[in-house]
Amino acid sequence: MHAANQISLAQVREAEQRIGNYVHRTPVLTSASLDRQTGARLFFKCENFQRAGVFKTRGAFNSVFSLSDAEAARGVVTSSSGNQAAALSLAARTRGIPAYIAMPKLALPSKIAAVRRYGGNIVWVDAKEAVPTSEEYESAAADIRTRTQASPVHPYNDPRTIAGQGTCALEFLEAHPELDLLLAPVGGGGLLAGTALTAKALQPAIRTIGCEPEMADDAQQSFRAGRIVPQLAAKTIADGLRTSLGDLTFPLIARHVDDIVTVSEDAIVDAMRLAWQMLKIIIEPSGAVPLAAILERRLSVAGKSVGIILSGGNADLDNLPWLTPART
Amino acid sequence: MHAANQISLAQVREAEQRIGNYVHRTPVLTSASLDRQTGARLFFKCENFQRAGVFKTRGAFNSVFSLSDAEAARGVVTSSSGNQAAALSLAARTRGIPAYIAMPKLALPSKIAAVRRYGGNIVWVDAKEAVPTSEEYESAAADIRTRTQASPVHPYNDPRTIAGQGTCALEFLEAHPELDLLLAPVGGGGLLAGTALTAKALQPAIRTIGCEPEMADDAQQSFRAGRIVPQLAAKTIADGLRTSLGDLTFPLIARHVDDIVTVSEDAIVDAMRLAWQMLKIIIEPSGAVPLAAILERRLSVAGKSVGIILSGGNADLDNLPWLTPART
Repeated sequence: MHAANQISLAQVREAEQRIGNYVHRTPVLTSASLDRQTGARLFFKCENFQRAGVFKTRGAFNSVFSLSDAEAARGVVTSSSGNQAAALSLAARTRGIPAYIAMPKLALPSKIAAVRRYGGNIVWVDAKEAVPTSEEYESAAADIRTRTQASPVHPYNDPRTIAGQGTCALEFLEAHPELDLLLAPVGGGGLLAGTALTAKALQPAIRTIGCEPEMADDAQQSFRAGRIVPQLAAKTIADGLRTSLGDLTFPLIARHVDDIVTVSEDAIVDAMRLAWQMLKIIIEPSGAVPLAAILERRLSVAGKSVGIILSGGNADLDNLPWLTPART
Repeated sequence: MHAANQISLAQVREAEQRIGNYVHRTPVLTSASLDRQTGARLFFKCENFQRAGVFKTRGAFNSVFSLSDAEAARGVVTSSSGNQAAALSLAARTRGIPAYIAMPKLALPSKIAAVRRYGGNIVWVDAKEAVPTSEEYESAAADIRTRTQASPVHPYNDPRTIAGQGTCALEFLEAHPELDLLLAPVGGGGLLAGTALTAKALQPAIRTIGCEPEMADDAQQSFRAGRIVPQLAAKTIADGLRTSLGDLTFPLIARHVDDIVTVSEDAIVDAMRLAWQMLKIIIEPSGAVPLAAILERRLSVAGKSVGIILSGGNADLDNLPWLTPART
């Protein structure tokens, strides 16, 4: 495995070549009304329109298509209750190889359906509680690896994943070199690390800001402490952002990111609803976190051109957070 | 006022020139998953991303910018509880003239807010029941005209409106000349008339199909009878499609449209939810009617390239029809 300091713009450009025929070059939306409301010029990179509805498709395709034919033939394996599971299933099906997905039995039915739609092989995780522990996930994935020799594909702490996620910023800055700020949500840090290293290499003057829930503020704590502060059981509605940083993503974030800001749960819900209402698009709670930071004035955007990565659109349409109590 | 037979592609092209700087050239989305599900190649023209969230912005801008300076100075007036009100307010504000909107007091708060956001002057309609009658609307609009000398802008039965709505098909067919079928919803018929006359002029082999709710099937009845059959109080969830055809839209539809199909209320809700889930976009019930026709197999699309006009995105985010009883 490469060390973090070996991941650079060159790997992101290689990833773009590798996955270009398989992933969408997603559109960038603007809204005169939101610009008036915020006093900034906002540019929304719509990874909710990405295949499988999420940016993770980029990293998954880069990982799957980086394997040798011999490795690929044995398949790939990951543990995920959500977006990574669907994205990896789609990438594996596209290469014609098996994907083994360790999933909790209580994953959302819509997430299970997405994995099945893309042909993933679900292996249920044995868990004492409703949500499996990291150890229970890891044990299930290890069993699969022993049985199949499948290659593990980590959802964020892997150079191929990080380089794949960086292709989003590459497209974004090629289309909009005028950006002053670039905002991305941060959970495990794959998207933020790939975004920041790409932005700093292409346009050193751009400030890259990570955005995360107050209720899962491990990235901000880690960024300030200069070491990984693990995230303990996080209850945020932004279910994609509950994980801790990895030992590959953290050093990249520490080196290339300019700041990390946090937002309240209410602001996430307000931002999600505002995007649905004004942009007429579906974004999931995790994808609303950067817009929430602007609405809550956690950073200064007045007069600036601000790029916002809308990371995904796999919202639960039967449980809208402004209509029902938040799912935790 | 022009007669219907004087509205042709030339007027649509003039409209495109007139409004091109003000309205969005909306994107066309596709979905490999929906193609697989329906056995067709579907192309979605996203008028939900149009300014004010609806295709009616095209006709409103064409009407407002067709006025002489002297006419324009006195303002414009329309009666509407919804999309026409917001679209005309936006067009009038853009030209710097007043828009007077006769609205019922029980219009949705979100619709009232949109008119105010765009600077429209609301005049409440005196009504005996919750929903004003046509006569009560007309009386309110007539009072405004007497008082202000403002020019009436009809939401569908006006050649400038019809020509403006036709610009949507013009863009669509320029981008996708390969379409075999072109589907649009039909209420008062402005969008369908403009779409059909444009399609037949550009590509005579394309079949244009109007789609409407079974519970408001006046267009199908009129099409079959060869005369306008008025729509009586319609309870369909597709609130934009409850109106009758006009004496300008009907003859254009009779001449240029190939067929009109109807759909059930359940299919409208299913199609709306499917678009939200798979395309990650917000469409309102009226905009879901053509996709509903495909899901309900009211027309044969197997192997065909099918253009679908998603007419608008102003859904009520606090009352989702798959979560709450339909608003009627």
